[in-house]
Amino acid sequence: MKTPICDMLGIEFPLLAFSHCRDVVAAVTNAGGFGVLGASSHSPEQLEHELAWIDDQVDGRPYGVDIVCPEKFEGKGMDLTSEQIAAMVPAEHRDYVVKLLDAHGLSLDELGSNPFSARQTLSDSIGEKLLDVSFRHPIKLIANALGVPPQFMIDRAKAEGVPVAALVGAKEHAIKQVQAGVDVLVAQGTEAGGHCGEVTTMVLIPEVIEAIRPIRDVPVLAAGGIVTGRQVAASIALGAAGAWTGSVWLTTEEAETAPYTVQKMLGASSRDTVRSKGRTGKYSRQLKSAWTDAWTPEANGPGALPMPLQSILSENVLNRLDVLAEKGNQGAQALASYWVGQGVGLMNKVRPAREVVREMIEDYLDAAERITGSVEGGDE
Amino acid sequence: MKTPICDMLGIEFPLLAFSHCRDVVAAVTNAGGFGVLGASSHSPEQLEHELAWIDDQVDGRPYGVDIVCPEKFEGKGMDLTSEQIAAMVPAEHRDYVVKLLDAHGLSLDELGSNPFSARQTLSDSIGEKLLDVSFRHPIKLIANALGVPPQFMIDRAKAEGVPVAALVGAKEHAIKQVQAGVDVLVAQGTEAGGHCGEVTTMVLIPEVIEAIRPIRDVPVLAAGGIVTGRQVAASIALGAAGAWTGSVWLTTEEAETAPYTVQKMLGASSRDTVRSKGRTGKYSRQLKSAWTDAWTPEANGPGALPMPLQSILSENVLNRLDVLAEKGNQGAQALASYWVGQGVGLMNKVRPAREVVREMIEDYLDAAERITGSVEGGDE
Repeated sequence: MKTPICDMLGIEFPLLAFSHCRDVVAAVTNAGGFGVLGASSHSPEQLEHELAWIDDQVDGRPYGVDIVCPEKFEGKGMDLTSEQIAAMVPAEHRDYVVKLLDAHGLSLDELGSNPFSARQTLSDSIGEKLLDVSFRHPIKLIANALGVPPQFMIDRAKAEGVPVAALVGAKEHAIKQVQAGVDVLVAQGTEAGGHCGEVTTMVLIPEVIEAIRPIRDVPVLAAGGIVTGRQVAASIALGAAGAWTGSVWLTTEEAETAPYTVQKMLGASSRDTVRSKGRTGKYSRQLKSAWTDAWTPEANGPGALPMPLQSILSENVLNRLDVLAEKGNQGAQALASYWVGQGVGLMNKVRPAREVVREMIEDYLDAAERITGSVEGGDE
Repeated sequence: MKTPICDMLGIEFPLLAFSHCRDVVAAVTNAGGFGVLGASSHSPEQLEHELAWIDDQVDGRPYGVDIVCPEKFEGKGMDLTSEQIAAMVPAEHRDYVVKLLDAHGLSLDELGSNPFSARQTLSDSIGEKLLDVSFRHPIKLIANALGVPPQFMIDRAKAEGVPVAALVGAKEHAIKQVQAGVDVLVAQGTEAGGHCGEVTTMVLIPEVIEAIRPIRDVPVLAAGGIVTGRQVAASIALGAAGAWTGSVWLTTEEAETAPYTVQKMLGASSRDTVRSKGRTGKYSRQLKSAWTDAWTPEANGPGALPMPLQSILSENVLNRLDVLAEKGNQGAQALASYWVGQGVGLMNKVRPAREVVREMIEDYLDAAERITGSVEGGDE
């Protein structure tokens, strides 16, 4: 198959797969797509370890890395320690979480030591260290998951000859990104898992392409809700250079998704997700649960804190709830959530990542045939 | 061109155009698409007049009618007069609107006599009368805009040999509709103007097709955000039989959209719409304005009333605000709104409806070529 992104990245099928799991990244790359390792919560040492493993698996086939260097966050420029950031969380919010847990029959003690802390703090310095590690490996794309990439990222990538991708959820952001020098845009619709805006993929893709055309010709990847080959074909029809996927890999055999969450996902319809600030402080789409309910305006709680403070409240707590949920704790099961897009309604089976790619290619070809057939029919 | 819906309806391009404006209906039908007259706010006499006019224009080419026979509404089965329904609106809500107008420098007196009333009341009997009128004309499709069509509508259409279409925004509703005997499903994504659910077109179309497959093979039209030919092609890629459009016709030369609203639409981005209960009592997508703001949870107002009571508060008021907005009244301009989907971000020019169809066909063919090219490239 051939689209602009296939040429640019040296792949056979215009499919990029974002995953925190190195096994998924390697499997997709080996199946003719392009794996992108989500490395925002890795330490530099962990990232080095993961990329070395991937290099061993993919035999020179192309893959990429995604890190988070957000433009704006509480404490930006201050390079605070996680303890200093944790201390910025108001007592009111800690108390609210304790009460929420209590209402679900859970005490804070059950969640292990130091529940209100983050695995990783956001900072430019950690971003630079992750970049250093990434560029010691033969990566073919570096992506920034939130906002315009910092100048050091763009400069470094240009020096290394590696294209920079950035995620956008609105045409105004796309324009800023292209002006900043980004090489690939991931236009992510509101149906996407994780951070997303309000505009749907069907509208966002043509709107972004139209908006950036006068500035510079940058390939746009469609993201948001894409879990089948027919949706990849729809993306190409919309003018995208390919598709960027994430959610679909969460229920593959390789993924490290918490087992109870996998079961929730397999049973979920597209209406079981919600855009919530409850996880990171910015709107991100995830499974609806008692946790996300607690951060809606209707809940009359204190509301979510700005990034990265909300993660101090949520990250460890939700990870540890996953363990309790798996053991059958009903309160933990009600609260458990994870990022996933509306495409979860089409994710009904655990399969190997390789098989997902193969089925996507077949489904893409069927869709292409439908389109070709519709046009040929008119020539009769 | 040829798709299942082209065969079923006898059209050349798989495009259905919903409009309250007979000129748009006739223009689209004459250009090779399929016009559908939105007749929910017509009296039987008006509808007779409009359909006779359309018959004169289209020379036997196919068109349809869309009426609203909702399953559930306040006063259902009671056949209340509009006065009786208006009397059901609490004083608190009337006062809230008066205060809202006042905050925008407007008094109720400026809005003419009897501002809190509806042009048309919902009832099964009006639905039956509109059906009677419709079937006196050679309509090729009858659509119900909200919920499962009543049995009398399905029975009558079957007797007349006319397929029945129904709008759905979730797979659960699609299953109910197919079980009730509907012949065509319009699966409408959250990006759609007017009543819509939460699921986006990109996800909803494959999800609905998958859900109804075990029951019966019913063509699914994609709706929501579709204003270009590439999006029609994307719909076919997703497995839809064609596309159902609405918003794109609001800024055509023929449309009767209020002039100030047309200007708002031409300048709007996809993020300038909102799903609001403020117009009908059910979530419907429309231009964001001071009116829609007033019915959000954050506004601390009394909240929207159930259908059809909210329309008593909104319909005349908003129509008359349109007149004042056109005259330059700034309060009215801030409040003015109208149903439109996120596709408004791609609607930047007033054009004749005929030209919109022609451009859509060209854009569809370009998209088909992109898809074909991507597959052929792979054979090299």
